[in-house]
Amino acid sequence: MINEQVGKYRAQGKTVYHMGFGESPFPVHPIIQQAIAGYSGKNQYLPSAGLTELRTKAKQYIRKKHDIVSDEFETMIGPGSKELIFDVQLAVDGDLLFPAPSWVSYIPQTMITRDNVIHIRLGPEQQYKLNGERLERTILESRAEGANPTKLILNYPNNPTGMTYTPIELEEIAEVARKHHILVISDEIYAQVAFRRPHRSIAHYYPEGTIVTTGLSKHLSLGGFRLGVALVPQRHPRVFEVLRSIASETFSAVSTPIQYSVLTAFEENEEIEKYIDQCTEIHDIVTRYVWHTLRTLEVDYAEPQGGFYLYPDFGSYGEGLKKTYGVERSTQLAHELLNRSSLASLPATAFGDDDDNLRLRLSTVDFDGLTALIRYRDGEFDTEEDFVERVCPRVAAGCRALESFFQEAAR
Amino acid sequence: MINEQVGKYRAQGKTVYHMGFGESPFPVHPIIQQAIAGYSGKNQYLPSAGLTELRTKAKQYIRKKHDIVSDEFETMIGPGSKELIFDVQLAVDGDLLFPAPSWVSYIPQTMITRDNVIHIRLGPEQQYKLNGERLERTILESRAEGANPTKLILNYPNNPTGMTYTPIELEEIAEVARKHHILVISDEIYAQVAFRRPHRSIAHYYPEGTIVTTGLSKHLSLGGFRLGVALVPQRHPRVFEVLRSIASETFSAVSTPIQYSVLTAFEENEEIEKYIDQCTEIHDIVTRYVWHTLRTLEVDYAEPQGGFYLYPDFGSYGEGLKKTYGVERSTQLAHELLNRSSLASLPATAFGDDDDNLRLRLSTVDFDGLTALIRYRDGEFDTEEDFVERVCPRVAAGCRALESFFQEAAR
Repeated sequence: MINEQVGKYRAQGKTVYHMGFGESPFPVHPIIQQAIAGYSGKNQYLPSAGLTELRTKAKQYIRKKHDIVSDEFETMIGPGSKELIFDVQLAVDGDLLFPAPSWVSYIPQTMITRDNVIHIRLGPEQQYKLNGERLERTILESRAEGANPTKLILNYPNNPTGMTYTPIELEEIAEVARKHHILVISDEIYAQVAFRRPHRSIAHYYPEGTIVTTGLSKHLSLGGFRLGVALVPQRHPRVFEVLRSIASETFSAVSTPIQYSVLTAFEENEEIEKYIDQCTEIHDIVTRYVWHTLRTLEVDYAEPQGGFYLYPDFGSYGEGLKKTYGVERSTQLAHELLNRSSLASLPATAFGDDDDNLRLRLSTVDFDGLTALIRYRDGEFDTEEDFVERVCPRVAAGCRALESFFQEAAR
Repeated sequence: MINEQVGKYRAQGKTVYHMGFGESPFPVHPIIQQAIAGYSGKNQYLPSAGLTELRTKAKQYIRKKHDIVSDEFETMIGPGSKELIFDVQLAVDGDLLFPAPSWVSYIPQTMITRDNVIHIRLGPEQQYKLNGERLERTILESRAEGANPTKLILNYPNNPTGMTYTPIELEEIAEVARKHHILVISDEIYAQVAFRRPHRSIAHYYPEGTIVTTGLSKHLSLGGFRLGVALVPQRHPRVFEVLRSIASETFSAVSTPIQYSVLTAFEENEEIEKYIDQCTEIHDIVTRYVWHTLRTLEVDYAEPQGGFYLYPDFGSYGEGLKKTYGVERSTQLAHELLNRSSLASLPATAFGDDDDNLRLRLSTVDFDGLTALIRYRDGEFDTEEDFVERVCPRVAAGCRALESFFQEAAR
């Protein structure tokens, strides 16, 4: 939607600063490029759960990178973690506990699966994060009203908020989930794009009740390859078997050359690991640059902890936005920003949040990944600010456009 | 299931003639192999319905190969035609008209979608084929009983029967479907493996109400690549939009390097077309060889018309099978054949058919595809029989095993 709109504007020769889409901009690592070429003759069907060697490697790698101690998981390979989250929703009956704001696809998925959704609305005062107490209260209240909560979706580092959970917060949620027999669907696709602090999964604390999903689209910029992984607790053998059956009756298995080509991605190959670290460091720098702009605008927002998004609340500009632009809603705000200041973003409503909240998701990937990677490796910049301004000029210009737009409103 | 069992036997050093599985055995065409290598750097997400260029080419190619005159279709690319059939079932409400015996995945799919199924049982006397009169009777009877038939699955050339429909038969079914507003889901994945007579789609007669699904797994032996195509009538814009939404919330889009790599497959490339014809001619020869064995056994079965399967009914051996082997059911028959004669096959129950029917699906692909292709091109054989015996020795030996098993029963 937003991509098409931006495409149209750009085709007309208009400048657009694209903070509306979220695709990691780096090139495919050459080792993986070479690998796929080598496996182009592989045309046989693979087992529904995936190539055995890939499943074994992926499990070990994910356990290490997500700090999961337990080994008691079955591994499922699917065409993207989105498909796997959908299949888990099909496989696990009952009502879904759904913290919002949240990523765009969870709710449309429940429309297809026809599951009941129990919303948990979160705000900036708690950094949009769930806690144990709130979770327990929601479970008890919804049960009192006759609902049957059985599963919870968590996503951290979070899209759209850029926040993640601390070990203590995860442990607290894990305890409540265990007590009330809630299966946690833990979407950790941004795990390796966590900034400066290593990622830890809630499966560290609650391995018997956590399905961890992840993939290669974020830290390896392999979105188009379509390969995701789910670790399913062996304590839930039925869930794994249902996942495998669904796979077998729908997509069959992930494309064979693709499965072979990404084996190296799960081998802790030194070169690839370095590339992952560098990409994440660049995301950190660029995202922090946008965050500094928000601080200049005195928007109260915690420093991003991972991913490539920010989700500021411009509520403090409410009066000015109304007077200056006639803007009272998030969707209007996104519209005005695009039309007046050439800045594309996504409104709160795209994330299950109220339109009354003057919140936007700003993504920070509108730059050339290959150039950024080369310049970053060469270290040819004085400060991080200098790096963004020279290497990611559209992001920097977008920030200037954002500043002018809100400074105008504040007058 | 059967593959794992055969794998275990073979790992133990036992000989098994594998007529249980159905994967086309030929190598990936070199042009497609080279193409995938050239697109290994393509990591971006593609639109949910598929790469525009691929959609355009696929539609033109399929219209030509399936003899579809109308151009009024939207094209949807998915990870295999199985996924697309599943998504169509999700997208179209109402009860499914389901002719059986039929391919293994349709029914488990309806279990996931929770659709009601109206079975239409077909027998060898009508070559397991539906006709207009039978279809109309079923629609009227089921409606009288309160059902709401809205969609019909047809599959031709058929798995498991190897039969296909004549133009007249298709026209008759089309008329009934049109009269009763039934959407036809026409699974034509074996279209280009039709023997000697060119394939024609029911969409030739009923373009406004036929969803044609197909893929690359059969005629190009690209099963593992996972790419299928659906043509959706523009008269049903909602179905196409729902398909696109489901894609967007589940698998997103087919793997990008895979989509680029198969562009040539839809370009009527001379070399690739020749390869497709040769593969089909080999399937024809091998399948006909097995059919001759059935004739030797005096099993009444029409000559296969496409694909790589036969579905003989051994009912005439009923007495002997019971006396000699204690076999009274299809599942027992498959079991005894494997244990006594090392011949793997699939029983009637795998295709929604009654276990009482002593029917088996025999597939004809247990040979080395590359060798077969080279020998066939070189023309180094005297007769077709000679070709199978020299180039496909396991198929020939399987036929001898079949003969002995039934001749023993007939004594």
